[in-house]
Amino acid sequence: MVIPLIDDLQYCNWSTEIFRQLRKSNVTAIHTTVAYHESFREMVSNLGAWNCWFEQNPDLIIKGLTGNDVRLAQKQNKTAVFFGFQNPSPIEDDLRLIEICFQLGIRFMQLTYNNQSLLATGVYESSDTGLTRFGQQAILEMNRVGLVIDMSHSAERSTLEAIDFSTRPIVISHANPVWWHPARRNKSDNVLRALTANEGMIGFSLYPHHLRDGSNCSLESFCEMIAEAASRYGINQLGLGSDLCTGQPDQVVEWMRVGRWSKTIDYGEGSKSQPGFPTMPQWFRDNRDWENIKQGLQHVGFNTNEITMIMGGNWLKFYDDNFGSVK
Amino acid sequence: MVIPLIDDLQYCNWSTEIFRQLRKSNVTAIHTTVAYHESFREMVSNLGAWNCWFEQNPDLIIKGLTGNDVRLAQKQNKTAVFFGFQNPSPIEDDLRLIEICFQLGIRFMQLTYNNQSLLATGVYESSDTGLTRFGQQAILEMNRVGLVIDMSHSAERSTLEAIDFSTRPIVISHANPVWWHPARRNKSDNVLRALTANEGMIGFSLYPHHLRDGSNCSLESFCEMIAEAASRYGINQLGLGSDLCTGQPDQVVEWMRVGRWSKTIDYGEGSKSQPGFPTMPQWFRDNRDWENIKQGLQHVGFNTNEITMIMGGNWLKFYDDNFGSVK
Repeated sequence: MVIPLIDDLQYCNWSTEIFRQLRKSNVTAIHTTVAYHESFREMVSNLGAWNCWFEQNPDLIIKGLTGNDVRLAQKQNKTAVFFGFQNPSPIEDDLRLIEICFQLGIRFMQLTYNNQSLLATGVYESSDTGLTRFGQQAILEMNRVGLVIDMSHSAERSTLEAIDFSTRPIVISHANPVWWHPARRNKSDNVLRALTANEGMIGFSLYPHHLRDGSNCSLESFCEMIAEAASRYGINQLGLGSDLCTGQPDQVVEWMRVGRWSKTIDYGEGSKSQPGFPTMPQWFRDNRDWENIKQGLQHVGFNTNEITMIMGGNWLKFYDDNFGSVK
Repeated sequence: MVIPLIDDLQYCNWSTEIFRQLRKSNVTAIHTTVAYHESFREMVSNLGAWNCWFEQNPDLIIKGLTGNDVRLAQKQNKTAVFFGFQNPSPIEDDLRLIEICFQLGIRFMQLTYNNQSLLATGVYESSDTGLTRFGQQAILEMNRVGLVIDMSHSAERSTLEAIDFSTRPIVISHANPVWWHPARRNKSDNVLRALTANEGMIGFSLYPHHLRDGSNCSLESFCEMIAEAASRYGINQLGLGSDLCTGQPDQVVEWMRVGRWSKTIDYGEGSKSQPGFPTMPQWFRDNRDWENIKQGLQHVGFNTNEITMIMGGNWLKFYDDNFGSVK
């Protein structure tokens, strides 16, 4: 049996061709984004689109709701697709929408994208409130129903407070350590220690703005970073969250950054000279290249068991323990 | 001709009876709230209800859009009704909804109610970011279209930053000075100096939680507070904003406080022993009692011209200067 390969963050321009790429690399499960700035109603339309993809590609993908759906996909040679939000915009100002979203299949929700949300502060704000009053209520409710808190785009204080306030482990689904590459979106050692000490997961990102040397980052450097993270935080809380956006046109990254909150462009992690999606590293062009990651991890000294954990085993255990109400 | 009596904040349970009370006291104009936690769509339904009231009570009320509508109402012995939001929830996450709301007749918008909003921080949060990135964009747009910024329920730093960042005067439509009554919702001397130095207006509140001695506050104490404010800030920036909620059932104050963000009750300015609307002072039961305020102001030494300014003249000048794009 192939190992459960889980990528905990993708936002591709979905098509049967990309689902076939997932199958070529035996990707067992992905967590994909179904909302950046969408309202509840707009997000539901995205779920409708996914229902069509499931209907049209029954030989390639299944909807993922529990860890057992990963095992089912593994057995059937399909990819289980789990849903998440990169921003709490779909719950609007309504605490009760958290359980409704869980019932629709949502399993992750970031408390913020780059900006201040009603719940907490994003990493691009100049000042960080930590959790708001609604943010605290939302965490209680997410803990209750088993919708996982993701702080990938959140600011430092908000992230530390979420780790502390949540009674269940949280995740940073797609980011890298600041000590490897000091990007604004990467995370401090302090945050990663608090996260992993509370059984939270970090998904290492392959998005070039999060990589040392950007698109020119070497596979060896990326895998050495994971080895260093394993020595600092232990291996159990490490996984992958590639942030892969295969086939997305540049106006999509503009939507992610600017949404509807500004009439002028905000380049986010990009710049005026590089406003669009950056070029992926040549050793990870898209879902066809997961074997390279596996070999890279071998090359820096991880054994087969450790590679299995990093490439999916740890996420699977996390899914088992954290989706749905406490057993 | 009667003086233009303007009350810059009311949220009554509107009816023909209350419109008649407004007329009995010759109230020339009011600013009334059309959204606390409503989404854009929900707020539009509230405007629909107002359109019906205008249609059904053409002898009592007219819709107010400019200072000249106050003069028209004065001439016709009617009350001009101006619209505002106590929370930016109706613009959701969409900067472009600011101009749309202006076009629908909205003239005031609070950047926050009690909690953190997408724009700034409310006074009940434990930490205050000041203006968010979206908040700064929103102020630029509100300044452009001439939709007035109201910081009545906002926290200190957010309020000071809004005064500073806005190129046009802003208001605190309903609050009193902390130096008179140290309620959480009342404003520091620092805020009131910055507000008025920038030609912003303060509307003195008659809501018992904002009054020294609450429901037992004396008319003399209230008017002496206005006299002290006049000596500190000058008389030109002072007005009234009663926060009158005639006829509202207690579940309305619960909606104001809790909206949809909490499943447990938050008492806001109230308490477990006093969860509902407080009793109004006996000298200001409702819109029938404005003459008492006028006499109270005379009693503490204001002359006729000064009383005219405080009771409506200052607001009228502010409306003339600040509704709509810069002439």
